[in-house]
Amino acid sequence: MSDEPVRKDSEIRRPNSSMGCGSKDDKASLASSQTMSLSPQPHQPSAPGSKEVWKKGGRMFSILLAVHLALLACTLVSSGAFERIAVHDYDVFFLLTVMMLIVIIWIIFYLISTSRCPDAILCKDSHAGPVWLRGGLILFAIFSLVMDVFKIGYYSSFYSCLSAIKIMYPIVQAIFVVVQTYFLWISAKDCVHVHLNVTRCGLMLTLTTNLAVWMSAVTDESVHKAHSKLKKNTTEELFRWLLKVGMRSGSTEACNCNSQICQIFKNGYFWLYPFNIEYSLFASAMVYVMWKNVGRFIDHHSHHIQRLKFRLFRRTFFVGIVLGLIILVSGLGVLIVYEVQVNSSTEPSKKGQALTMYYIFNIVCLGLMSLVCIGGSVIYRFDKRDMDRHKNPTRTLDVALLMGAALGQYAISYYSIVAIVASTPRDAISALNLTYALLMIAQHTFQNIFIIEGLHRQPPKEDHKRSSHQKELYGLTFVNVSAVSLRVPDSGSVSALSTGTEGTIPSDLVRSLTAPKKINWRRKLLREISMFLLLCNIILWIMPAFGARPHFDNDTELNFYGDSMWPAIVDICLPFGIFYRMHAVASLLEVCIMS
Amino acid sequence: MSDEPVRKDSEIRRPNSSMGCGSKDDKASLASSQTMSLSPQPHQPSAPGSKEVWKKGGRMFSILLAVHLALLACTLVSSGAFERIAVHDYDVFFLLTVMMLIVIIWIIFYLISTSRCPDAILCKDSHAGPVWLRGGLILFAIFSLVMDVFKIGYYSSFYSCLSAIKIMYPIVQAIFVVVQTYFLWISAKDCVHVHLNVTRCGLMLTLTTNLAVWMSAVTDESVHKAHSKLKKNTTEELFRWLLKVGMRSGSTEACNCNSQICQIFKNGYFWLYPFNIEYSLFASAMVYVMWKNVGRFIDHHSHHIQRLKFRLFRRTFFVGIVLGLIILVSGLGVLIVYEVQVNSSTEPSKKGQALTMYYIFNIVCLGLMSLVCIGGSVIYRFDKRDMDRHKNPTRTLDVALLMGAALGQYAISYYSIVAIVASTPRDAISALNLTYALLMIAQHTFQNIFIIEGLHRQPPKEDHKRSSHQKELYGLTFVNVSAVSLRVPDSGSVSALSTGTEGTIPSDLVRSLTAPKKINWRRKLLREISMFLLLCNIILWIMPAFGARPHFDNDTELNFYGDSMWPAIVDICLPFGIFYRMHAVASLLEVCIMS
Repeated sequence: MSDEPVRKDSEIRRPNSSMGCGSKDDKASLASSQTMSLSPQPHQPSAPGSKEVWKKGGRMFSILLAVHLALLACTLVSSGAFERIAVHDYDVFFLLTVMMLIVIIWIIFYLISTSRCPDAILCKDSHAGPVWLRGGLILFAIFSLVMDVFKIGYYSSFYSCLSAIKIMYPIVQAIFVVVQTYFLWISAKDCVHVHLNVTRCGLMLTLTTNLAVWMSAVTDESVHKAHSKLKKNTTEELFRWLLKVGMRSGSTEACNCNSQICQIFKNGYFWLYPFNIEYSLFASAMVYVMWKNVGRFIDHHSHHIQRLKFRLFRRTFFVGIVLGLIILVSGLGVLIVYEVQVNSSTEPSKKGQALTMYYIFNIVCLGLMSLVCIGGSVIYRFDKRDMDRHKNPTRTLDVALLMGAALGQYAISYYSIVAIVASTPRDAISALNLTYALLMIAQHTFQNIFIIEGLHRQPPKEDHKRSSHQKELYGLTFVNVSAVSLRVPDSGSVSALSTGTEGTIPSDLVRSLTAPKKINWRRKLLREISMFLLLCNIILWIMPAFGARPHFDNDTELNFYGDSMWPAIVDICLPFGIFYRMHAVASLLEVCIMS
Repeated sequence: MSDEPVRKDSEIRRPNSSMGCGSKDDKASLASSQTMSLSPQPHQPSAPGSKEVWKKGGRMFSILLAVHLALLACTLVSSGAFERIAVHDYDVFFLLTVMMLIVIIWIIFYLISTSRCPDAILCKDSHAGPVWLRGGLILFAIFSLVMDVFKIGYYSSFYSCLSAIKIMYPIVQAIFVVVQTYFLWISAKDCVHVHLNVTRCGLMLTLTTNLAVWMSAVTDESVHKAHSKLKKNTTEELFRWLLKVGMRSGSTEACNCNSQICQIFKNGYFWLYPFNIEYSLFASAMVYVMWKNVGRFIDHHSHHIQRLKFRLFRRTFFVGIVLGLIILVSGLGVLIVYEVQVNSSTEPSKKGQALTMYYIFNIVCLGLMSLVCIGGSVIYRFDKRDMDRHKNPTRTLDVALLMGAALGQYAISYYSIVAIVASTPRDAISALNLTYALLMIAQHTFQNIFIIEGLHRQPPKEDHKRSSHQKELYGLTFVNVSAVSLRVPDSGSVSALSTGTEGTIPSDLVRSLTAPKKINWRRKLLREISMFLLLCNIILWIMPAFGARPHFDNDTELNFYGDSMWPAIVDICLPFGIFYRMHAVASLLEVCIMS
């Protein structure tokens, strides 16, 4: 026998060996006295019906592609952020535009190929792309489109002295946002089974493009904030920066943004940046889950299809929502007062007042949230629901993102704490800042524990079904106990049928009448807690996302770490902290609906 | 029924439900016409005999502990590295000493408690802590101990003007190294089943301590390199740095390292740093695998216990080893010449010559390695061995570390490429540097693909067993075919017994005679390739680990990115690049032995 046929067999060997495993226990006992060691891989785990020889290998190539692209983008974006470095931001825009165009082409190819091939999507992951995530995506997409319009308007104000790529970029980005949002809306749940490797690479390309756009937006915003905050030789610096940003000719008079409408465009697009940043991150998360689902077979038997309904205003006491709304509104007030006082006045006393107010509000808010999270975790300790251990890439990603994104805020807080403890002049603001940093760490930790516990609970579906079943029972005028025993096969029908049916059923009926009330009380409380935390997280997202930077208004850390290290720490870590808040909002909504 | 009994049931509910799952298929078809939806979690996946209600929850706490400690250490270490920041390195040493003492106490507690309790370790993970990893650990531990002796000698030279913690630190570190090495030597394979949460936290503490020691060593070395390389006002800077490093009093005359023996101690411990760095990383990797194995049950039926023997000098052509040794020795020569020329002479032409030599050697080496890796991957494409898909935390970690650590070198290379392409004066050295950076990316990518494919292959045990079985067959003077058929139950004894035994057995015999030769030819080649790559990786580890820094000797990137950004990039990314080389050596040894 030559080598060739054996080589070709390697692809079909796996189904054979898994078929051979069919009744392995009987054979093992039969053959144990014989030469067992001869049979090759007698107990190989088999993925039923998987066409792929090696899933990990298929994934590896797409990861490599993504890593290289992401590193290239990261290099260009970070170099472009510095004035002294001869990388211009139109180099970055050029790369991003090319990437987005490739992604648009791939998405169109994907949509056509999956719609033509009936076997392309054999199953759907019911956990992926829940409706509130897709709703959030569309909301952010709309704001991103508005931002793109503002950007186009801003750049067309001085079109003559800009390179064409600066106008091209927002136009391509708008198309990209529309195409990608449509794609994610209809395909977020897909488990693709055709063109496996092409799909993986395409999805990784999409993911990398979104991350590159995110990096570019974050850097752009940080540079803008640094220029407006640090206020060192503002006009010259800004002018030099604008020159670097993409002026083509030397006619600087025509290239200034002097007109009223141009200023509106400019301020508008910087205000809308946070939405675009969140859009990129939401899209990245959904694309990642799609990538994990490529080639996946979902066993629908072991997979409860959860139809969670959005019952926000049913069965709540409104305490959580009302408290949360109070904090949200007062937080908005604090933010506006803080921004006005810090930016307009140059007196140190006014600045100190604004900082004190900001820290006190945050300390109160974080303290309440920590307490509420601890309470929620205690309630979960007494929760009777089973842990949900099914494979669920969406949840695994959620947990990883929560833990990972919290690192950003943790790092800022630890650096703050070290600076405050080591600095000598200790005043009231330092004490507030220290409390704020410590509470920030505590709140992130407790909230993560609460959310992760909540996400791992089974949804309370037995309860609803049991209560609907109760109605059926009471609808019957005549209850035959042995007939009921056939209708209620609780946790093991064989044992219920064989032994003592008459004894178990009444107690089961009694439990089904009394238990839900206690459970409901707990669930209501959990729902209140998650609604309160959700609204608090929204205000804690709004504050840094729309410009509050106590890290720079307060001098302690800036003096301790210097003008280069502290801005670097904050600019790298804060985007993760901001993302954490928005992601916590999405996760808390899920916890709220599931409890 | 009240709430209390149900609450206490929650811990024992899982075994019940998993028992209830026993013959679910029959029941499902029987009960499908009835009210299926009532039974709670009818298809829950069950971990047989697991005592833990929720493994993820238990892990989460230890991860949180590790994250907080690691961030605190990172903050202190990074702050301590800067002169202007008022964090001294004895603050860092104090934290590290306390952490190491706690770990020593925990390890002693662990060793006592597991030796007393017979049920503590029910099974062992045969993949964890292979003998070459533990051998490498002991080798690095010995060098670390020598380094600690040198450090103690160095600091005791001017004991009077140092804080006590500077002497304490190497002493505690020496004890820590001894205790931890003993602990890992005997317990690396353990799957612990008592004190689950305490063990997890203890292991995470050990991991964090090792990482903190690694961070501290890397930072210390980078500061030292920066001071000896950049040579700007060397004497004053070094003096100021020494002052900051831990002088207690102002008597600076007695605190200078002027004596001959003191200089030897100092140079000695800086030369031995790379070994200590590798020790910490090896220990971290082994501790992480132990942490993953806490509470794990290994099904020994589905788990081939691989007794891979170290047959280095059997069945090889020596081509790989000889070629590798040539490169290793010439690399050592190049390194010595380079170091002497760059450090001693101030002429730019000599420096340029040294750089040219360094780049040419690296280009040749990397080019050869890339070609060889591609060749190896092509051979794997034609390999008939099945993919190994068993759960294996050691391998998962290996792959993740290879992919992750490569990011460090990727980042340096991408930044280099951008700088070279964007810089205008393009000379020969720039061209060499560009080729070097591109080849570095290619080599890392191809080598990762080769190693990951190699690690996922089944070890060739069928072959050996078949050949030993052949000897048995030929030992028989009279071969009865039907008797042989009973002795050779290949891939499914039932089918072999029932259908056409006489037809299959002869072809099987023929294949067992002809196939191994072709297979052996491929395996020999794979072994040559891995030995060659292994030796090349050793020299590529030695060069940066023992001081070659073309990144700073070559001006292009330094001029492009500036004096603060480029050193930051290199100092953060290069340790990962160095770790990659040593980790690749360990993985290639495994690939070599498995092929």
